[in-house]
Amino acid sequence: MSRFPTRTPLTLAVALASLSVVSTAVAQPQSLEARLAALEARIAAAEQRATAAERRADQAEAALDALDDADLEQRLADVEAHADGDLGLSLNAYARSGLLLDDHGKSAPGGPYLTPAGSTGGAVGRLGNEPDTYVETTLNYKQRFDNGARSHYRIMLADGVTTSNDWTADESDLNVRQVYAQFSDLPSFTGAFEDAKIWAGKRFDRDNFDIHWLDSDIIFLAGTGAGVYDIRLSDAWTTNVSLYGRSFSDYPVTGSDSPGLTGSTDNLIFTLNNHIGDWQWMVNGLSANDNDERDTGSEATAADSGFHTMLAYHGDSFFGVGEGSFKAAALYGRGLGAEVKSLGSDGNLLDDAETTRLAVYGTTYLAPRWRLAPAVLAQHSADRYARGDSYDWATFNARLANELTENFEMQYEASYQWMDLDPQGYQGHNAVDGAYTKLTVAPTFKPQVGGFWQRPEIRLFASWSDWDSELNDFAGDDALGDDTFNGGEWTFGTQMELWF
Amino acid sequence: MSRFPTRTPLTLAVALASLSVVSTAVAQPQSLEARLAALEARIAAAEQRATAAERRADQAEAALDALDDADLEQRLADVEAHADGDLGLSLNAYARSGLLLDDHGKSAPGGPYLTPAGSTGGAVGRLGNEPDTYVETTLNYKQRFDNGARSHYRIMLADGVTTSNDWTADESDLNVRQVYAQFSDLPSFTGAFEDAKIWAGKRFDRDNFDIHWLDSDIIFLAGTGAGVYDIRLSDAWTTNVSLYGRSFSDYPVTGSDSPGLTGSTDNLIFTLNNHIGDWQWMVNGLSANDNDERDTGSEATAADSGFHTMLAYHGDSFFGVGEGSFKAAALYGRGLGAEVKSLGSDGNLLDDAETTRLAVYGTTYLAPRWRLAPAVLAQHSADRYARGDSYDWATFNARLANELTENFEMQYEASYQWMDLDPQGYQGHNAVDGAYTKLTVAPTFKPQVGGFWQRPEIRLFASWSDWDSELNDFAGDDALGDDTFNGGEWTFGTQMELWF
Amino acid sequence: MSRFPTRTPLTLAVALASLSVVSTAVAQPQSLEARLAALEARIAAAEQRATAAERRADQAEAALDALDDADLEQRLADVEAHADGDLGLSLNAYARSGLLLDDHGKSAPGGPYLTPAGSTGGAVGRLGNEPDTYVETTLNYKQRFDNGARSHYRIMLADGVTTSNDWTADESDLNVRQVYAQFSDLPSFTGAFEDAKIWAGKRFDRDNFDIHWLDSDIIFLAGTGAGVYDIRLSDAWTTNVSLYGRSFSDYPVTGSDSPGLTGSTDNLIFTLNNHIGDWQWMVNGLSANDNDERDTGSEATAADSGFHTMLAYHGDSFFGVGEGSFKAAALYGRGLGAEVKSLGSDGNLLDDAETTRLAVYGTTYLAPRWRLAPAVLAQHSADRYARGDSYDWATFNARLANELTENFEMQYEASYQWMDLDPQGYQGHNAVDGAYTKLTVAPTFKPQVGGFWQRPEIRLFASWSDWDSELNDFAGDDALGDDTFNGGEWTFGTQMELWF
Repeated sequence: MSRFPTRTPLTLAVALASLSVVSTAVAQPQSLEARLAALEARIAAAEQRATAAERRADQAEAALDALDDADLEQRLADVEAHADGDLGLSLNAYARSGLLLDDHGKSAPGGPYLTPAGSTGGAVGRLGNEPDTYVETTLNYKQRFDNGARSHYRIMLADGVTTSNDWTADESDLNVRQVYAQFSDLPSFTGAFEDAKIWAGKRFDRDNFDIHWLDSDIIFLAGTGAGVYDIRLSDAWTTNVSLYGRSFSDYPVTGSDSPGLTGSTDNLIFTLNNHIGDWQWMVNGLSANDNDERDTGSEATAADSGFHTMLAYHGDSFFGVGEGSFKAAALYGRGLGAEVKSLGSDGNLLDDAETTRLAVYGTTYLAPRWRLAPAVLAQHSADRYARGDSYDWATFNARLANELTENFEMQYEASYQWMDLDPQGYQGHNAVDGAYTKLTVAPTFKPQVGGFWQRPEIRLFASWSDWDSELNDFAGDDALGDDTFNGGEWTFGTQMELWF
Repeated sequence: MSRFPTRTPLTLAVALASLSVVSTAVAQPQSLEARLAALEARIAAAEQRATAAERRADQAEAALDALDDADLEQRLADVEAHADGDLGLSLNAYARSGLLLDDHGKSAPGGPYLTPAGSTGGAVGRLGNEPDTYVETTLNYKQRFDNGARSHYRIMLADGVTTSNDWTADESDLNVRQVYAQFSDLPSFTGAFEDAKIWAGKRFDRDNFDIHWLDSDIIFLAGTGAGVYDIRLSDAWTTNVSLYGRSFSDYPVTGSDSPGLTGSTDNLIFTLNNHIGDWQWMVNGLSANDNDERDTGSEATAADSGFHTMLAYHGDSFFGVGEGSFKAAALYGRGLGAEVKSLGSDGNLLDDAETTRLAVYGTTYLAPRWRLAPAVLAQHSADRYARGDSYDWATFNARLANELTENFEMQYEASYQWMDLDPQGYQGHNAVDGAYTKLTVAPTFKPQVGGFWQRPEIRLFASWSDWDSELNDFAGDDALGDDTFNGGEWTFGTQMELWF
Repeated sequence: MSRFPTRTPLTLAVALASLSVVSTAVAQPQSLEARLAALEARIAAAEQRATAAERRADQAEAALDALDDADLEQRLADVEAHADGDLGLSLNAYARSGLLLDDHGKSAPGGPYLTPAGSTGGAVGRLGNEPDTYVETTLNYKQRFDNGARSHYRIMLADGVTTSNDWTADESDLNVRQVYAQFSDLPSFTGAFEDAKIWAGKRFDRDNFDIHWLDSDIIFLAGTGAGVYDIRLSDAWTTNVSLYGRSFSDYPVTGSDSPGLTGSTDNLIFTLNNHIGDWQWMVNGLSANDNDERDTGSEATAADSGFHTMLAYHGDSFFGVGEGSFKAAALYGRGLGAEVKSLGSDGNLLDDAETTRLAVYGTTYLAPRWRLAPAVLAQHSADRYARGDSYDWATFNARLANELTENFEMQYEASYQWMDLDPQGYQGHNAVDGAYTKLTVAPTFKPQVGGFWQRPEIRLFASWSDWDSELNDFAGDDALGDDTFNGGEWTFGTQMELWF
């Protein structure tokens, strides 16, 4: 119903009145008296109309006031903040799921860490190489307080299985990988702490970053602890300080009088993470009391402390030679820090273990519809798990995409990995030296093409991989140790991948 | 605060001015000069009022423009789309939870598959017969892209336990049953593919359908793969094409030289699913390489391939004799296709296995507040797991409901199941022949009565069930094999059931 | 674009017309004829302006009508209801996560139930004493039906682990603790049932309440069942009626001819819970058929029934002596009711078991920025698990907080617990008698300080605890039985805690 119920009669009355007046007004020449009378009638009608118009204006203004657009705007902005995930509940996800089949129609071994180098982080390209359904489900709850402070609560459920069945209760790895709270915009934080964010709980560090195409983080710091982000030391320099704990549980302990004894300890990681312009410099100290009592299987002593550092550059061009982006990082770690990616996650490292790793990738458009993303990941690691061992490898990878329509692109990926591994008998592994190559072509559907990070994708793929047969000897229980997977392999499949 | 800060003074001034003019205007007869002067004053006042009214109109129009209703409408529509689950995050659920007690106050065996026929899919009525807390939690995330394309991400967590305790970590079956992405409205898809939807991941097929009252799907296709829905071949004919993989894991393998050896393979299901008017015709080919190496426990050979087809009719009346609905389906499968409902889920089927199944149900109102839903499910299956075996059964079920108030109805359910099972010693099972009967009455509360699919419901119930005692001999470890559950049983309980 | 496309030309025309009229109008003295002509021109212009203004008013009113504010208000209210969690999907959570380290940097034993008294519910203060990541994730889905009825569906996922690692698939206790539906505002419920809410499923009872600082419920009723809340017996008196089932699974059963035999039964709890003004009076009857066949490890007989009652007062002042709140409850149980907090959860109770428990706490501001919350929990329990045993203890706890800035407060907590436990050899436990003391200081960050229940919090803490060394002898496998945790212990850590 209209909010102006009285309008029609009034308008009609006025219109009729003025019509009658007008009809007399346009008549033939009249006496002054008649003209005056007519004018008086017209002015009376006009006054009536003015009164009516004013009443209507009052009503319209009252209606507009009732709408109270400032309040309306606030209410709309508030529900939009909820819809946009800026307030209240929101969802983030990473998911991939598909089939990876060999040429007999059976599941093939796969995963970017399938080569012997993979056991110490040497990933190869992931395209057309993933056998699992892996999913991260993140719920956020964001609050804004009366004083302007904000809180962000996050919980992540994660699961990974390789079965293709729908009911996976027996294989399920469902678990809570993150649950933390982070505060920002705190009014009583001023000076260097004005933009600081504080957090506690279990989390992935905010400043982790990865080479997506290798499914390898460049740095992955995660665990339970607390910290502060974005302490501003100068205009260009901000720093994060945090303490993360990780658990080493139920490892065998040395000691002739207690066979079967196990120990547990915590690996505490103290982190300083500096951003100075485009540079990132991270320094980590690690301590795991009593981890040196661990039975290493040899005379060597496990580390009970460690050091780790990373120097990285985040570039906003394609290595300075074109539009795009690049990232480059050099990492070094010693003792417990010698697992240079997944900081603090490896308690088997020796006190003399040392690792140096280099990670580089870039993204660019070669031509309007041709995207290219090359990457290099290389490592030298020694005295890692057994005295005199070494794990050296280098991966060269490139993904190329040709955007053919709004919803379809052809993707190509080539991986080459060289490795020279000398485990010195650790876990019964054998020394190997050789190379692995993988080529993939993947017709890919997308709701909208146009970028390296544009997801979701639905892809079909065919991969050909080959490797030096010596690599099959590294371990009996890894992918290349599988008797049915010996080199010159074709694999086929389909997969969806997305994040938001 | 009003958005018209200048209104009141101006209005007042004009009102006062016109009042004074009016007061002179209505005075006694005047000279022409006086009348003219009065008119001039009145017209001046009227002009002032017109100017004021125009200014107010300007302000009102500016305020209305600021409200910008097209934008407002768009913003409201957008947040409504989020609230309605058409964009962003939304939740779907199926859940049931309650108590099923015998007349000693202890948990009773139950479930629609409790009879020997249940082992090959012969369900009986579920009302007052469910002992578990089963819950499906589905999160959707829907995106609309600039080019109009849409993406739907879905993840389902499912769990089922029979314990009544709240903390169920030890019994938990929590797992990810679905996780997939589906794209639609793709601008570069035209012609027969204009309405096509493509998907990949792990899912329940969209076109599965069930007999709700028996908790039995008529067809249940699920697994990991990819496909296309709604390819339009003609005005009346659309078709879906998909490939689903399922896993057969760690089954015993024959071979005298390798006792204890297990094998694993993938059961690949290629599907064509046609909708032609009200008819649905589905054709499936199945292949599980090396499944014929499975140890069947006899000389018979397990199937490594299969064929399956279903012809169904989706009716929009109660079998043509009244208002309502009905569905009827005939299914046939051979080899791996002989599990005609849960396609591809049974790797123990023999290469000669054959199954024919008929499924029919309808819904109608017998009278204004009386609902009736009868159903029939019947099967003949032979050479299923052992040569010469047969699993024949037929279930007749009817649920009747009498809506007594807005929030309360009486529900009644009757089930009769005949079975003639000859397992030929498979898994130590014995041949049995007989019938099972169950009658249930369930006073039921609902927020709003009025339909077969209207949920949630909270119900109390009492069930009486009886069966030929010969059925207790089929297996020692099934519900009827339970020593304390011999026939002539009363069970009682309470339950909630819902979906949305 | 403006919705008033015709405005500018019309306004301009009128303005020009009136300007020209005005310019003549203000000229020198004129003849009557000239004045009349001028007036006629002015009135014509005024009439034109009135017509234009009326047209603009029509347009503005049409625009306002199009906005249709009643509908707009309804639509906004609807999306706000979704954003606020009053309709549709919403999230609730409880979470805590952090590190609890000893002075060697290793995880320390902890938890409010770490003392020997904890085995029968004797909690001590939780601040600076929690070693776990515990999280409850609750999804709600609220519906409003056409007839005004409302439905609330709730599912809670819970998990608790002590590992600090992010990937916890091996340790995960993720499980569904609640899943139920509750209906309210049912139009056909009238009279005493007008405000009644009915529910079924698995849940925590709505009227459970706790002493937050001890992490101890005063009453915790949970399980699977159905019930009715808020039946109004008089103006001041409402009552809840419910039936909860709980499962006792796979317990050893006595009987010389069947060693290793286990039994299972259901513990049914029938509850009447009355609210009479500020008083709450709860009466519970429990029955677990055949639980008396349980092997108690002695001649004593396990209970197959029980009785439980609680009288509580919910005060809206600090014990009548200041602003704040207090709650006080006396609980008594016999047989299966002798576990007086977690009703029906303990099947090992003897038929003669008796427990009396007192619980009191209050909250108040001692001064503008000083909060105090003292609590007492005390129990006498006898013939609990073995004839002649007794479990007597009393905990005195106080948490003090000093709000120093908008985002920071100092929290202090002191706990003292006395205990005299005589298990009569049950489970190999030894009789002990002694006291435990814990003092904690916790610098605490909050988005906004200001209340006992204001969360989230991020805290650092240091705790000192000491106890009579005799308490170490109670059990070999509890926290105090740990060889490395003997008294005079310092622990340190960080933690986030929140709920919403």
